[in-house]
Amino acid sequence: DDKEEPLDFSDPYSGDPSRHPVLKVNSQKPFNAEPPLEMLTENFITPNVLFFKRNHLPVPNINPDEFQLIVERPPGAKQGKPLKLSLKDLKTKFSRHEVTVTLQCAGNRRSEMNAIKTVKGLDWGAGAISTARWAGVRLRDVLSDAGYTENTPNVQHVQFEGLDQDVTGTKYGASIPFRHAMSKDHEVLLAFEMNGEELPKDHGFPLRVIVPGVVGARNVKWLGRIIVSEEESSSHWQQNDYKGFNPNVDWDTVDFSSAPAIQELPVQSAITEPRPGEIITPDEDDGKVTIKGYAWSGGGREIVRVDVSLDGGKTWKVADLIGEEKKGLVWAWKLWQLEATIPAEDKEITIICKAIDSSYNMQPDTVAPIWNLRGVLNNAWHRVSVTVARDQH
Amino acid sequence: DDKEEPLDFSDPYSGDPSRHPVLKVNSQKPFNAEPPLEMLTENFITPNVLFFKRNHLPVPNINPDEFQLIVERPPGAKQGKPLKLSLKDLKTKFSRHEVTVTLQCAGNRRSEMNAIKTVKGLDWGAGAISTARWAGVRLRDVLSDAGYTENTPNVQHVQFEGLDQDVTGTKYGASIPFRHAMSKDHEVLLAFEMNGEELPKDHGFPLRVIVPGVVGARNVKWLGRIIVSEEESSSHWQQNDYKGFNPNVDWDTVDFSSAPAIQELPVQSAITEPRPGEIITPDEDDGKVTIKGYAWSGGGREIVRVDVSLDGGKTWKVADLIGEEKKGLVWAWKLWQLEATIPAEDKEITIICKAIDSSYNMQPDTVAPIWNLRGVLNNAWHRVSVTVARDQH
Ligand SMILES: [Mo]
Ligand SMILES: [Mo]
Repeated sequence: DDKEEPLDFSDPYSGDPSRHPVLKVNSQKPFNAEPPLEMLTENFITPNVLFFKRNHLPVPNINPDEFQLIVERPPGAKQGKPLKLSLKDLKTKFSRHEVTVTLQCAGNRRSEMNAIKTVKGLDWGAGAISTARWAGVRLRDVLSDAGYTENTPNVQHVQFEGLDQDVTGTKYGASIPFRHAMSKDHEVLLAFEMNGEELPKDHGFPLRVIVPGVVGARNVKWLGRIIVSEEESSSHWQQNDYKGFNPNVDWDTVDFSSAPAIQELPVQSAITEPRPGEIITPDEDDGKVTIKGYAWSGGGREIVRVDVSLDGGKTWKVADLIGEEKKGLVWAWKLWQLEATIPAEDKEITIICKAIDSSYNMQPDTVAPIWNLRGVLNNAWHRVSVTVARDQH
Repeated sequence: DDKEEPLDFSDPYSGDPSRHPVLKVNSQKPFNAEPPLEMLTENFITPNVLFFKRNHLPVPNINPDEFQLIVERPPGAKQGKPLKLSLKDLKTKFSRHEVTVTLQCAGNRRSEMNAIKTVKGLDWGAGAISTARWAGVRLRDVLSDAGYTENTPNVQHVQFEGLDQDVTGTKYGASIPFRHAMSKDHEVLLAFEMNGEELPKDHGFPLRVIVPGVVGARNVKWLGRIIVSEEESSSHWQQNDYKGFNPNVDWDTVDFSSAPAIQELPVQSAITEPRPGEIITPDEDDGKVTIKGYAWSGGGREIVRVDVSLDGGKTWKVADLIGEEKKGLVWAWKLWQLEATIPAEDKEITIICKAIDSSYNMQPDTVAPIWNLRGVLNNAWHRVSVTVARDQH
C-alpha cells in the first residue's frame, strides 16, 4: 500500500514526501518503513533513500528561511528570553562537526517477539537500523551559547521538542541526560546534513538531533525547541513508551514509572544474507556459501567480534568485520561476512549470529526471556533457516 | 590448606599476611580466595577480611615511610625527571575523593565454564566479586600534576606497574586508556583507604589503583610507577591473558593479539541463597522462600532490574533491589531479594537469575556459547538447583 495518494487537505499526511518504492512499509500514516535486508548491507553508509524511516506523526512542512531553533536559557539569564537561532546562525556561529552514526529503532526485530506472543507496535523486521554520515554543530556548543555550563545547578535533562504534531497540537518530544548532552566524548549533534545532502524531509528537515549510541526515539527530528530541566521530557514517548519490562508484565500490570527510559542500546547483530527460507547453493568447488550481516552496540561500544554458527549453536566461526577506523567511542556498526563450508550431509540448516562489543557484552540466546509487551529491545541471537540445494553429480 | 606456615626466607610467599579462615582458598601461593556466597550478600559493603583476594604474585613488604610513587612526565618536561610522591604528598597535595566501587575478577564463575570443558585458570565460584568504599586521590589530578592535559599529544594509555614481582624481577602490570584515566566522570582513584581503614596488605598497601567499572586486573595493587604511553602495558596480563575468545578457539589456534584486553565488564548476576543442592523449606503459612543474590554491570551502568525464575526460565518475577543512591555513572552492585512462592507440587526446582543494566544489556542464557579457553567473562544466567522439603501434614 505505497502508491501515491492525491493531495487531500483534510489528511494531515498529505504533505508527506514520496518514498523509494523498494522500502517495506510497516505503516503508511505515519510513515514507517525499512529497506530490504540484502540491500541494507550492500554499503557501510546507507543511502538516504534506503535509510529506515520511523515517523510518529505527519511530516511537518518547514520553510528553512523562516526556521528558528528556540533554546530556553538558564533561569535569570537575559530576562529569560530564549536564544533563537536561524539555520544560517547555526551554520556560521558554531564550528561544524561530522560523525558517522548508526541509528536503531527500539522496535528493530520486533516481529520475532510478535511471533512468540502478540506485542503492541509496528511489526519491524531486522531493517530498522541504518548508518549515515551526519554533519551539523555540537549540542554542547549551542547549550554553552545559551548560557549553560557543566556546573549549571539543578539541570539533569535536555528536552527536545519536534515541530511534528498531532491534530490536537501535541508535539513529539524526548530527552537525554544533561551530562550526556554536555559530554565532549559523546558528540551529540544538531544535524542539518545527512550523507552530504541537506536533511531529507523524512529525516527531520531542516534540523534534527543525533545522539550517537542512543535509541532512535531520542534523536528528535524537525527539532524546534530545546529545554534544559530537572525533569525528563513529559512526552508520551519518554514516559509511557520506549521502556523495557519483565516478560511476565502485561497491559493490566504494567507500571511505566518503574522502568528507565531507553537511552543507550545493548549489543545487536543480524543476518542479512541468506534470507529465511531461501534455497542456497554452495559453491561447486569448495562447498562454501557467503553469509552477511551487521552488528552494532550502543554507548560507543565498538563491535569486537561476530560469531556465526551453522549447526544451531554447537560450534562457532569468527566472521570478518568491515568498518570504519575510529579512536575513542565508536558510533557506527560493523558489517560482517563469512565464507562458510556447509557440512556435506546437511539439507536444512539454521544459521545463527551473535556479536560481542568492547565491554564484552553478549547477546542473549533466545527471544522469549526478553519478550516484553511493547516488543522493544530484541537483541537475541538472530536465526535464519535455509534449505541447501546440492548438485546431484 | 590455609593453616599458618612457619616463616621461611627461601619462600617468596613467607611475607604474606594471615587471612580469615572462612575464605575458600583457590590457590595458596599466590593467595587467591573468595568468601562463602551466603556471607557475601549479608552486607552491601563487603568487610575487608571477606573481600575476595586475587594476587598474581607474592605480597610485597612495603615501608610506608619510604614509599614513593613514581609518575613519568611527558617528554621534555622537567628534563624528563619523574614526579615522585610520598604517601604524605598524596594525602596533602591533592583533594581526597571517595567512591563505592564493586570489583570483579574476570574469572568470577569460571567453575561453571570448567564444568563444561576444562579451562586454564583458578577455579573461582561466584564469589570473586566484592564491594568497598575506597578513598584516595583522583588519578587525573596526579597526572595533571605530572604535566599531562587532555590534549597532550601521542598518549593513548596509562600503564600501572605494581611493586609485586616474581623471582626474575618481573613486576605485575596493566593499563587503561588515557581518555578513561583523565575522565572526570569515571572517577579513577589512587586509593590508600578501604572501608575507612588503611589498605590491607592483600589489597595493595599502601597504594592501589581503583578503576570503577573495569575488570579487577586493571586495578593494580602495590602501585609503584605510572607511565603514560602510546602503547598498552606490555605485561603478560595485558597482552596474553584477560581477553575473550570464540568458544572454538583452543590453545593451538589462539592469537592473543586478535582480541582487545578486557576493560569494562558486561552485566552480571548470581544467586547466593539458597546454595546448590540445599534442601529448602518453604514457610509453613505462605509457602514462600527467600532467594538472595547480587547483580552488577561494568562501565558505570546501573542495574535496573533482576528477573528470577523458579521454573527453568518459563516465567520470571522481578526481585527487590537494595543499593546506594547515586547520580551519573554507578559503580556499585545491587543486592537483590525475592520472597517467592514455590508451586505446591514441585520437589526439585532450578532457580535462575538474570540482570538488566541501564543500557538494557541482558545476560546470555547459557554458558557453552560464551565458553573460552581462559574461562573469563562468564555472565550467563546463574542457575541453582535445590530440593524442596515439605511438611507432611
Ligand atoms: Mo524507535
Ligand atoms: Mo582477575
